[in-house]
Amino acid sequence: MEIRTDLALEAREMIDEKRSKRMDESDALPDGMHVKTRETEYIFITDIVIDSEEASKAIGKKKGRYITLELKNPILDTNELQENTGSSLANEIKQFIGKSDIREPKIMVAGLGNRNITADSLGPKVADKIVVTRHVKSMKDIEIDERLGNICAIAPGVMGITGIETSEIIQGMLKTVKPDILIVIDALASRKTSRVNSTIQISDSGIVPGSGVGNHRMELSKEVLGIPVLAIGVPTVVDAATLVKDLLGEENKTEIKEDFGNMIVTPKNIDIAIERMSDVISAGINMATHQGFGMHEINEYLI
Amino acid sequence: MEIRTDLALEAREMIDEKRSKRMDESDALPDGMHVKTRETEYIFITDIVIDSEEASKAIGKKKGRYITLELKNPILDTNELQENTGSSLANEIKQFIGKSDIREPKIMVAGLGNRNITADSLGPKVADKIVVTRHVKSMKDIEIDERLGNICAIAPGVMGITGIETSEIIQGMLKTVKPDILIVIDALASRKTSRVNSTIQISDSGIVPGSGVGNHRMELSKEVLGIPVLAIGVPTVVDAATLVKDLLGEENKTEIKEDFGNMIVTPKNIDIAIERMSDVISAGINMATHQGFGMHEINEYLI
Amino acid sequence: MEIRTDLALEAREMIDEKRSKRMDESDALPDGMHVKTRETEYIFITDIVIDSEEASKAIGKKKGRYITLELKNPILDTNELQENTGSSLANEIKQFIGKSDIREPKIMVAGLGNRNITADSLGPKVADKIVVTRHVKSMKDIEIDERLGNICAIAPGVMGITGIETSEIIQGMLKTVKPDILIVIDALASRKTSRVNSTIQISDSGIVPGSGVGNHRMELSKEVLGIPVLAIGVPTVVDAATLVKDLLGEENKTEIKEDFGNMIVTPKNIDIAIERMSDVISAGINMATHQGFGMHEINEYLI
Amino acid sequence: MEIRTDLALEAREMIDEKRSKRMDESDALPDGMHVKTRETEYIFITDIVIDSEEASKAIGKKKGRYITLELKNPILDTNELQENTGSSLANEIKQFIGKSDIREPKIMVAGLGNRNITADSLGPKVADKIVVTRHVKSMKDIEIDERLGNICAIAPGVMGITGIETSEIIQGMLKTVKPDILIVIDALASRKTSRVNSTIQISDSGIVPGSGVGNHRMELSKEVLGIPVLAIGVPTVVDAATLVKDLLGEENKTEIKEDFGNMIVTPKNIDIAIERMSDVISAGINMATHQGFGMHEINEYLI
Repeated sequence: MEIRTDLALEAREMIDEKRSKRMDESDALPDGMHVKTRETEYIFITDIVIDSEEASKAIGKKKGRYITLELKNPILDTNELQENTGSSLANEIKQFIGKSDIREPKIMVAGLGNRNITADSLGPKVADKIVVTRHVKSMKDIEIDERLGNICAIAPGVMGITGIETSEIIQGMLKTVKPDILIVIDALASRKTSRVNSTIQISDSGIVPGSGVGNHRMELSKEVLGIPVLAIGVPTVVDAATLVKDLLGEENKTEIKEDFGNMIVTPKNIDIAIERMSDVISAGINMATHQGFGMHEINEYLI
Repeated sequence: MEIRTDLALEAREMIDEKRSKRMDESDALPDGMHVKTRETEYIFITDIVIDSEEASKAIGKKKGRYITLELKNPILDTNELQENTGSSLANEIKQFIGKSDIREPKIMVAGLGNRNITADSLGPKVADKIVVTRHVKSMKDIEIDERLGNICAIAPGVMGITGIETSEIIQGMLKTVKPDILIVIDALASRKTSRVNSTIQISDSGIVPGSGVGNHRMELSKEVLGIPVLAIGVPTVVDAATLVKDLLGEENKTEIKEDFGNMIVTPKNIDIAIERMSDVISAGINMATHQGFGMHEINEYLI
Repeated sequence: MEIRTDLALEAREMIDEKRSKRMDESDALPDGMHVKTRETEYIFITDIVIDSEEASKAIGKKKGRYITLELKNPILDTNELQENTGSSLANEIKQFIGKSDIREPKIMVAGLGNRNITADSLGPKVADKIVVTRHVKSMKDIEIDERLGNICAIAPGVMGITGIETSEIIQGMLKTVKPDILIVIDALASRKTSRVNSTIQISDSGIVPGSGVGNHRMELSKEVLGIPVLAIGVPTVVDAATLVKDLLGEENKTEIKEDFGNMIVTPKNIDIAIERMSDVISAGINMATHQGFGMHEINEYLI
Repeated sequence: MEIRTDLALEAREMIDEKRSKRMDESDALPDGMHVKTRETEYIFITDIVIDSEEASKAIGKKKGRYITLELKNPILDTNELQENTGSSLANEIKQFIGKSDIREPKIMVAGLGNRNITADSLGPKVADKIVVTRHVKSMKDIEIDERLGNICAIAPGVMGITGIETSEIIQGMLKTVKPDILIVIDALASRKTSRVNSTIQISDSGIVPGSGVGNHRMELSKEVLGIPVLAIGVPTVVDAATLVKDLLGEENKTEIKEDFGNMIVTPKNIDIAIERMSDVISAGINMATHQGFGMHEINEYLI
């Protein structure tokens, strides 16, 4: 059973669809796949754990934990919605960071993607909005607000523009920067237009930058890099070729004369959506790293 | 027969498709519709004239002339391709301007669209690259290169951002600026992904800004404005809802659960495509207005 | 006595300097010039009224009222600072609007300046952030939140790019848009680096777009346009030639070999400063026009 | 004798000025400093070699070679000017690359600076325009135009935004990318407004990112990195504090009440100047790396 989507949530739905029916949740799942759902005023949260090879194969995702936040109001156009979403995200990130034994772990944020293509610019935009402190923490004679953690942030660019694989850049930087934890942000593809810019996936299983061809060498994960990796992804597009295939069905024999390669389906106002989503994700990371700040208070430290 | 597309070329193809066969060109057309095609090294040119009410109804387009340039290599990534396309466009614009009896007609360029949304930013980007001279021409004691014509350029923005209908802005400006000719640039929607960023339509029948709902009051045309209007349009997206309908066919009874409203299909690298297309279109207008300049020479006058 | 500065506050200081001493405020002023100062937690407010020809000549400013807000903390890097400044500005604008007898006056905002030059992009950025409603108010069958006023916003561009004088564009638009009040936003030049991005001047005497050469035809004022005009200006640069002259003194005989024409003095981080200042000014206008919203609440209506 | 400027040319002029006279060139120089000048139709070229400790101290610059291109027409507004300047730059870079014994040396370009601040964005903009090939060269089964060399390009960002010193990022990347040659691009400060955006300095002595405080650990040079480093710098601003000091003279006793820290002097149209200069520098690097292309031909390979 071949399944291809960046979202664990969708992979799981596709299993259900294959079975042509919706069963009781615990019933429908392969051994080693555990799903819990909960709900806040603004968000549906699905928490999927995959801890067996069987479940990993069935769902086409690596072993690990996948938390999905689905925003009830994806427009994110009020302060309250943004703060609430940022805080929910911060809580999930804090739990992940908390697993580290280190008292003040050094965190490196890597914002993947191409800042010149709006739908792919989420990662670089988040990186730009992180309240970085690593350089100040390393100065001996500077006093710094005790609530601030130790964090740095880079946007490594994309291979077509740098000529270097993203993972090579990050692996090189780990050698000199030596963080304890890596947080990676990337724009994903969904199968459903309704998920675009309305879903945040947080996973501890790592990420393969770009199209996800499964090249181990390029994977950003604990196994490859040696430090815990938290991947935060938001679907910002639907791949046009996938959409067409989904619409027509696999059994469809109609010859499609058009080439949908390199075409994407995206909302008209993608610019605004990316701007707000990057505000919320950077706020989540900032609030998880630096203790005791509200979403706007932490911005006092942004230069 | 209801036909909806921004391109006359596509409207005409749809007629052919309805007839379920491809006939000899002159045969297939309604009375009062005349089609000529020619070809250069880099471009296929289709010249459609609609001069009867019958043809206008059949094709769903106003009476007038519609010239379509289809680029054989839409990437526009060499100087030669850009200059060649710019020159072809300049020739068509010159012919239109030449119909005016005025020796040095005053030209106003209006670049429609939203500069914050990449796929809709073609018009504003073209307006920015016009070598404007109206303000210098009106200064009494300044000598100016005799080859330069009289042109000005505006980007009126979109109603969602200004709160004003585009046609109100332009009609207001005509009262004080008083040009002899209006050239309007807009990003269009095509039905085929292959036409996106590879087709330029030039028409003397005017344009309705935005979604083309046919509201006469908003139309930018000679009938409404009182001066000749040349509309230059490039399809930069395929409307997602239209694409889905086309793919599934009208007779399709499958219920589609997704909402494709406000979703567009667009190439991943839309940023680069818009940049190059705006270079070519502005060069075409600059070369048609100012006499005796090559594509790069005219830039000496760009500030 | 020749005085040239965009700020009435500075013109007044220059009078004091000429007299080589600082007198008691009321003492030092020409007849027909009235100055009041007050202070809030975050802002010094100076309220200058010029109501005689004598005072107008002495200070080199048109008759009218000039309110200057000087921010004690110009960084505007917290939510609280931004909301406070936005509210103070909203109060001043409300008073001006309140003088109109019309129950719900139609307001047009014009954001002057060149959006491609960071230091000159304040006006266009403010225009982009106005919650416009004029188009919705004109639709018969749409219900709209009663708290929303009637406002539209344009960014007319600059003459070097459009080929049209800013005042011609605005005068043309007034003919079709027909607002009751015009609010004009522009980036100014100060004589002091300390005022850059930290001072907001609000005036009912109108504005001359660009360098202020005093060409009546180009003036945007009640006398010329026939409707009340509120000008909001922020100094974003110091003119380099002026700075040099100030530093060396007018009696200086040293030959300066360098050309400072077209050079400006500006903070390194001008991008961030303009972004924040445009947030605050647009919030002030939005809160003055639409009743009963906080700075962030109104953004719910921003598309 | 304390001398502070990013340009060797200016350091040398300052020596002359100290001596209060202009002598014959060879006469005026300290031992171990060699200056040659030549001129093309569009450019003055000054070639300074410093090969003694004495000269190094006298001029305040490290031992090495400093080539300065001074553009006679800094506007760079015609194709011819751009191609000519790009070619001149390419020749100088080729000579530097030619000193390497390696047949096809692997080149890494690092574009230093902050892409969000116009005057500091030269480096990142150049990096974006490099025709990178390293990733294609490393693919076994892909045929590639034989004229293309091996090059990659990064924009490491600035410490205030990343929290990491630029040199740490580059040193980390050298460990995985392993280039043979490093080319570093940076925006510099000049003492003279006339040099801004009109001068290109090429040096083999390395560079200290940022303000040049001489911290050895941060230096990007052959001594520190172990591979040849070519630094290409363009003055894009004059530091306001330096300008003021220069104007008033060091012996000036006047108390200056204003704070010019973090203020820069820059042309109004800095955006256009940086765009054109980055076109020319990237073209120079592209033409030096990839053999047999004209400035526009090479763009065929830009994605």
